[in-house]
Parts: sequence; structure tokens; C-alpha cells
Amino acid sequence: MAMKGAIVSAAKALASPRSSSASTFFSRQLHATPGSKKIVGVFYKANEYAKLNPNFLGCEENALGIRDWLESQGHKYVVTDDKEGPNCELEKHIEDMHVLITTPFHPAYVTAERIKKAKNLQLLLTAGIGSDHIDLKAAAAAGLTVAEVTGSNTVSVAEDELMRILILVRNFIPGYQQVVTGEWKVAAISHRAYDLEGKTVGTVGAGRIGKLLMQRLRPFNCNILYHDRIKADAEFEKETGAKFEEDLDKMLPKCDVVVVNTPLTEKTRGMFDKERISKLKKGVLIVNNARGAIMDTQAVVDACNSGHIAGYSGDVWNPQPAPQDHPWRYMPNHAMTPHTSGTTIDGQLRYAAGTKDMLDRYFKGKDFPAQNYIVKEGKLASQYQ
Amino acid sequence: MAMKGAIVSAAKALASPRSSSASTFFSRQLHATPGSKKIVGVFYKANEYAKLNPNFLGCEENALGIRDWLESQGHKYVVTDDKEGPNCELEKHIEDMHVLITTPFHPAYVTAERIKKAKNLQLLLTAGIGSDHIDLKAAAAAGLTVAEVTGSNTVSVAEDELMRILILVRNFIPGYQQVVTGEWKVAAISHRAYDLEGKTVGTVGAGRIGKLLMQRLRPFNCNILYHDRIKADAEFEKETGAKFEEDLDKMLPKCDVVVVNTPLTEKTRGMFDKERISKLKKGVLIVNNARGAIMDTQAVVDACNSGHIAGYSGDVWNPQPAPQDHPWRYMPNHAMTPHTSGTTIDGQLRYAAGTKDMLDRYFKGKDFPAQNYIVKEGKLASQYQ
Repeated sequence: MAMKGAIVSAAKALASPRSSSASTFFSRQLHATPGSKKIVGVFYKANEYAKLNPNFLGCEENALGIRDWLESQGHKYVVTDDKEGPNCELEKHIEDMHVLITTPFHPAYVTAERIKKAKNLQLLLTAGIGSDHIDLKAAAAAGLTVAEVTGSNTVSVAEDELMRILILVRNFIPGYQQVVTGEWKVAAISHRAYDLEGKTVGTVGAGRIGKLLMQRLRPFNCNILYHDRIKADAEFEKETGAKFEEDLDKMLPKCDVVVVNTPLTEKTRGMFDKERISKLKKGVLIVNNARGAIMDTQAVVDACNSGHIAGYSGDVWNPQPAPQDHPWRYMPNHAMTPHTSGTTIDGQLRYAAGTKDMLDRYFKGKDFPAQNYIVKEGKLASQYQ
Repeated sequence: MAMKGAIVSAAKALASPRSSSASTFFSRQLHATPGSKKIVGVFYKANEYAKLNPNFLGCEENALGIRDWLESQGHKYVVTDDKEGPNCELEKHIEDMHVLITTPFHPAYVTAERIKKAKNLQLLLTAGIGSDHIDLKAAAAAGLTVAEVTGSNTVSVAEDELMRILILVRNFIPGYQQVVTGEWKVAAISHRAYDLEGKTVGTVGAGRIGKLLMQRLRPFNCNILYHDRIKADAEFEKETGAKFEEDLDKMLPKCDVVVVNTPLTEKTRGMFDKERISKLKKGVLIVNNARGAIMDTQAVVDACNSGHIAGYSGDVWNPQPAPQDHPWRYMPNHAMTPHTSGTTIDGQLRYAAGTKDMLDRYFKGKDFPAQNYIVKEGKLASQYQ
């Protein structure tokens, strides 16, 4: 039944107007042509951790838990964590792969050059949210489909942001460091520890994650501001008490805490440069789980050193993995981690299921859920335009 | 005006039925007798941090910001952080002090022996919440008044608890450690990082702090359970979705996260011993900002070593300051800090104001806010009985 359905669907896809063989613009199939596909997955390696948790699906070893399912349908599934440089494992498969799956936590960077080389490539799937590791314009020009598992880890990231706000506001890190180094100096912590209550928190971007964060901030009785392209509906504003700020640069100087919740696009790259940071309140706290490149790396270091930024926390870096000498590892008053907020076990279960669902639809020639598309039929999703 | 008022009030206090000079039970005045008082404050020392923040009132150097106010009324105000052993600064003043102010963050331990020696002592004030550093039965028998600034830092502690829940659930600490040691191993974090959403959080004790915590947990969509002597009203349960558990030992095995929110009393001392911990879920996370002695210290260490407790976070220790060799500093999967959650700058402003208010009432022979009394007229507050 499933096989028959898949063939019928694939045939339908070939004949449908969406099938782009007749298009002058699209050079590739948007839906799978019948037959065996070569699917490449790039995930972080887990080594000894791979077997510790049966739900730990997001690592190379467990490969989203879809190997048996793919192979039973005759597809080939290659997984690796080796993704950089001309001799890496990924490079060996670029020419003949049909689908590339990767995650924001250990992204395979899909450059225009790699797209040019990938003659069979049809589909780029992000297991998670955020497809800025792909040259989206090049992907669109080449007629590729790019899709994410939209919503799969928004709760995971929003929770993590609230944790980081509290870690900074309450000055947690120096206390933890004292404990492990055998010290006890309450004053060194408490002279700059505050309650979140009564402070002003502003989010730059109020998409799915930003909204979930604001809902979680509500009972803390802080002033919640948000800047976005689109004003939220009245019901949301009433529920959260959040206030819309049309002008980003008017919002930022009001904030005790700034949270970054925008995708990385050409407009947001380097958005927090020296000049914009200088306009923030002295002593501002910044949480950025969005993308590292939204910040000017050195401007953040300088402002942390001067005390203009009193605390910086996030799990995103430029590039990733962060090299050993990345200056954010060593700047004062940071509470950084590797990129993990969206790859909780709960998040992995959701994005593994969402990736499997899209592959299934791809094999069957069915459309994906509309909100998952980042590049479709040569067009970029609105947040990336 | 103020001086005249104080004298009139003090005279009234002398004449009032509450004045205990006629009592056979009370050996001391419950309200101030007229004249200069000797007030001793025991606070943590801030050294170079004292001048960094004008609102940093809770340290020895800034001494709640009440020195000028006390001295202008003719009172003597001695402050110190030196509180232990027979030759400490505090011991020099025990015999003739009228009032002792201290905090839970750097508590002056008021033993029966010290109470016996303190012939002039009338009033013991806790700048903050939690008076277990005082032998309350001895204080009651000696006719002393003991009072706290109830509510002064409940929000501070509840926020801190939610931060610690997230730090443990999301496995923050190993990520931070990787950053500062130059590593990047996502799997070592994510194989045991979870969302809070959907997990079961139970609070042992649902007084002011427990209730504020549950309100803040509400938007996280977790299952909220609480055990207390008293069931909360229906409105609170509806608002938070929290469910009352009459039997503590039936609640505990259901919890992914246990938060301790009871005062330290004879009943709660050592409440989490080896046996009770063994009945918790394997992999349970524990947050304890209440008091260290509610835990059996070694039982917690053993369960963290075995993995039965998968994470332990709190800011309370037994004793305080924690010695350099306290085993909680070195057990696996902890996220401990020195005792600071209630001494944020916002908390300090509130408990400094509340302490000043009680001193003012004491000088004027007025009652304190009812909820502040821990020992009054020989009786202990209900939570300490």
C-alpha cells in the first residue's frame, strides 16, 4: 500500500504543475522522482553518549532514528559529522546526493559552490529551526527546496532564553564559580544581583520563540517590550502585557535586558555593532540564542570588557563549533554554552519526527506543511527576504 | 515631632498590658524601654564591593543604611561580620546589646548559651526570612521577641528557584564548563538535556515562596504538585493548575523535579534522608533554597554519585559559610552557589526598609506587622511549631 501510494504520488508529482521539468527557471525536481534516493545526514557525533539515552536521536550515531525506515524503502542513508574542508566525508557525497539533512547545532554549510557541485540535489532539510547555514539565494536559483521543522524546538529555545535572563539578572555564574573553587564571598555576587521583577525586557523579533518567551515572562511582573515587522494581535498583548515598539532604536535604550529573536538574514547580520551597542543602557544584559553573526563579535567583547554590557549569554557563535580561541569564551560576565538550546531530548524527538514526515511527503510527492518552507519554487520565506 | 512621638509611644508601651514587667513568665521588656539602645548588626563583609552600588545595603559596610538614622536618635549601632568563636567581635557585645539584627546569608547563630549571657537583649531581628539560626525555644522562654521581614525577598527566592529548575532540567552547567575550558561537545550536554514542558514539578511547602514559584511555573505547561499543611484556595489552584498532595510520600515519587520550600524546624531537619531520597524517581532533580539542614548532607552526596539524583541546586548549606571541604562543592551534577538568592539588590532594599520600620515601631512601642513575628509573648509562629 505504501509503496504503491508512493509511486502514484511520485507520478502525480511529475505530472503536476509544481513539477518543474517544464520550467525554464527550475533546473531540478521539487518532488522526488521514483526510485532509490541517496540521503546524507550531517549531525554532531555523540561517541560514548550515544547509547546512554534511547531518545537521543539527534546525534550521528542515532541519525534521527530513521535508518531502518529509509533502508526498508530502498534508499541509501549516509551520515557523518565530518563536514568541513575539501577532503571531508560530506564532500564525497555532494555530487550524487538527493537530499541533505543537517541541524543548526552542527551545521553543514551549504555554499553556492557546493550547490553547483550537487547535480542530483533536490531537497535541503534542517532538522530544527534556522537555515542560514545554506546560501538560500543560490538554493533558490538552483531550484532546490529548503525546509525546516518549524515549531519543533521553539519551546526548548524560549525556556532556555528565560533561564539565561535569570542567570544574568541574578548573577549566577560568579556564585557557581565560588563554590567549585572553594570560596564563599556573598558580596562579590550580591552587589550586582537583581530581581527580574520590575525590570524592562525587550525582544528583538517576536516570532514563535519571542512570543513563547513573552508568555513565560508574564508572571515575573517585568515590563515587556517587543520589536518586530508585525504587531501582535490585541489578544496576545492583553495576555502578556507586552508593548509593541515599532522603532527598534527607540526600544533598545529602554531595556535592562535585550533578547535577540530574529533569524540571521542580510538585514540582521552584524545588527548589534559598536554603534548600536553604544546606544544600549550602560549595564545592559543581552541574551542571544538566535545566531552569533547577528552580533559584531569584537564589539560584544569590547562592551563586556568596558562594562557597558554587564552580562552576555547565548548558545550561538560565529562560526560553529566555536574555535578554542573564540574571544567570547574569555570575555568577562558571560554565561555562554555550545549551541544546544534547541536540541533537548524533547526537541530532538520533535524534529526527528518532523524530518521523517517531510521525507515521507517528499517520497510520496506531497507538499510539506506550509510553514516549513524556507525556499519553495525559487522564493524565499518572508523572514529571510 | 518624631522625637516627641517616640517618647510618648515608649511611655505608652511601658504602661500598656503588653509591657511584660508584671508578667511572671517574661523576664524582659517586649518593647523598648526609654533611652539609648545598643543595637548590634551582623552582616557579610563586602570589602571592595561595598562602594560599587549605592543600593548595596545588606553588607557590613553599608549596614542597612540606618546608621545615621539610629545615631541621630541617640542609639549605639555596632556592626560586624565576626560572629563565631569565643573571641569574636559579636561576643564582646552580647552582654549589653538590646537588639541583634542579622541575616540568613551570614547568620549570627543565637544559641541558648548566648541568650543566657545577653542580659539586656529584647529583640532579635532577621533582615530577610528564616530565623532558624536562633534557638527559638530558648528565645521564647527568655521572653525575647523574634521577628523577620516577612515577604521581603520571597519574589527574589522564587525567581531564583525557577532559574535553578531550568539550569538542572536543561543541563546548563556542563555547557558553560565546556566553553571556559575551550571545548565543544554538544552530545555531552544534550543527551541529558530536557524541556521543562510536560515534566512534573512538586514543591514541598507552599507558603509565600512556593506560591510565587507555582505562579511563575504556570506558562511552562508542566504538571505542578504541592504538599503543605494547608490546601491552597480554589482560586489559586485554578490560576496555577497546581494540585494539592496531602501525603508527601505519595507526591514525591511522581516528581521529575522536587523543590524544597519549608522552613527548617525540628520536623523538617534531615527530612530528606537516605530512605526518603531512595523513594524519589531515579534521575530526580532537586532544588533547595530553603535550608541546607533539611537534607542529610551525605545522603545527597551519595545519591548524586550514584546518579539517583541527576542534579542538585540550591544556595543553602549546613553550616554557612560552607567550609572549603563541604562535600556538596565537589559532588557531580550540582549547580550550587553561596547563600544569595534572597539578597539581591531589590531584596536588600526591601528588607532594609522592613528592618528600619520594625526598629521604629520598637522605639515607639508599636506592634510589628502580625506576619513578621516568629516569637511573640513566649509563643512560636505556627510554621516553627
